[in-house]
Amino acid sequence: MHLRKEDLKALGKVKRLNIINAISGIKPANLIGSISAKKVPNLAIFSSVIHLGSNPGLLGFISRPAGNVHRHTLENIKETGSYTINHVHESFIEQAHYTSAKFDRHESEFEKCGFTEEYIENFQAPYVQESQLKIGMKFLEIVPIKVNNTVLVIGEINHIILPDAVINEEGYIDMEALSTVGISGLNNYYQLQKIGSFPYARTSEVPDFLEK
Amino acid sequence: MHLRKEDLKALGKVKRLNIINAISGIKPANLIGSISAKKVPNLAIFSSVIHLGSNPGLLGFISRPAGNVHRHTLENIKETGSYTINHVHESFIEQAHYTSAKFDRHESEFEKCGFTEEYIENFQAPYVQESQLKIGMKFLEIVPIKVNNTVLVIGEINHIILPDAVINEEGYIDMEALSTVGISGLNNYYQLQKIGSFPYARTSEVPDFLEK
Repeated sequence: MHLRKEDLKALGKVKRLNIINAISGIKPANLIGSISAKKVPNLAIFSSVIHLGSNPGLLGFISRPAGNVHRHTLENIKETGSYTINHVHESFIEQAHYTSAKFDRHESEFEKCGFTEEYIENFQAPYVQESQLKIGMKFLEIVPIKVNNTVLVIGEINHIILPDAVINEEGYIDMEALSTVGISGLNNYYQLQKIGSFPYARTSEVPDFLEK
Repeated sequence: MHLRKEDLKALGKVKRLNIINAISGIKPANLIGSISAKKVPNLAIFSSVIHLGSNPGLLGFISRPAGNVHRHTLENIKETGSYTINHVHESFIEQAHYTSAKFDRHESEFEKCGFTEEYIENFQAPYVQESQLKIGMKFLEIVPIKVNNTVLVIGEINHIILPDAVINEEGYIDMEALSTVGISGLNNYYQLQKIGSFPYARTSEVPDFLEK
């Protein structure tokens, strides 16, 4: 099948959304926890969390701008300056998926979707107790993406909380042991099984058999 | 384990890179194909391709700025205005990984790592023949991310090429049938198995059993 730009435009909206949300490959499944100035917690699933840098540790995610309806996560982050990123595991993919429903701002998705808020000292935003890998983020900056009126929300990693058993001496994190999942498109969840690990690639060490 | 910002800073560089590159969750594995004005093809693995919008179809990826050494992909994109994004499948994860070695600009990673260039009419950049899902991109814009001197490279989807058998009527793409893989951190590859699919989430349809 060869879909050209015109073919994509001619598709029905739902099918176009499904295809274009899926073609970039597997996406991470994370719940972003936040809290409003009025102390209403919020939880929402995002598949757009992205690594930006390691020193300092920076992560970004894509959002519609605040001011749009139902951008509670971004509004809360701007109000309080902190948020959490929590891995979605196999055991709660359905609960996690339903955080994307458009609840009112006075409603907590923690309560509505069956999650438990967890707080640590000197950090405002709620973590997801049910998640095994939780990241505490300090809000840094919003970069506007003018071409389609979205924003890249950038934060600095202040806390990483995870079980000792899933990280080895090299700092590799075992996504299979964590039962962390990936998302394809808007609706489809995938489990992960490790199939390979290769060293940092140097031109002097490229295996001969690879060359044609 | 609880790693605070100070703990991350105190880690050795490699361990810090491994941890911070892994904690955002699974990342898509894509080969970006490009060609210089002098007609030297380039191929490089990226784990930072991200969905930005569906109408028009926009994808982004993160890069160090051109001008840095070994940013051939970005230099080529700026020179020719086009590039391809090609899924990495289980059958060639090792070859794909080694495209990250720092080859000289006159060398082709297609040749060095065992891939075949494929060209379509009226489109300059090379696709990866071995890849089952290939996207032809038109370069649109570079958004600077000043906080750590990286850039978000934005392009518009002009072509999607994939086997008929992996896409259904709804537009869902079967990542398991494609044997498309994900990356954790810098070095670790995961296969994908579908475990769930849920409808578009409406507050009126959140299953009762989810609520606490």
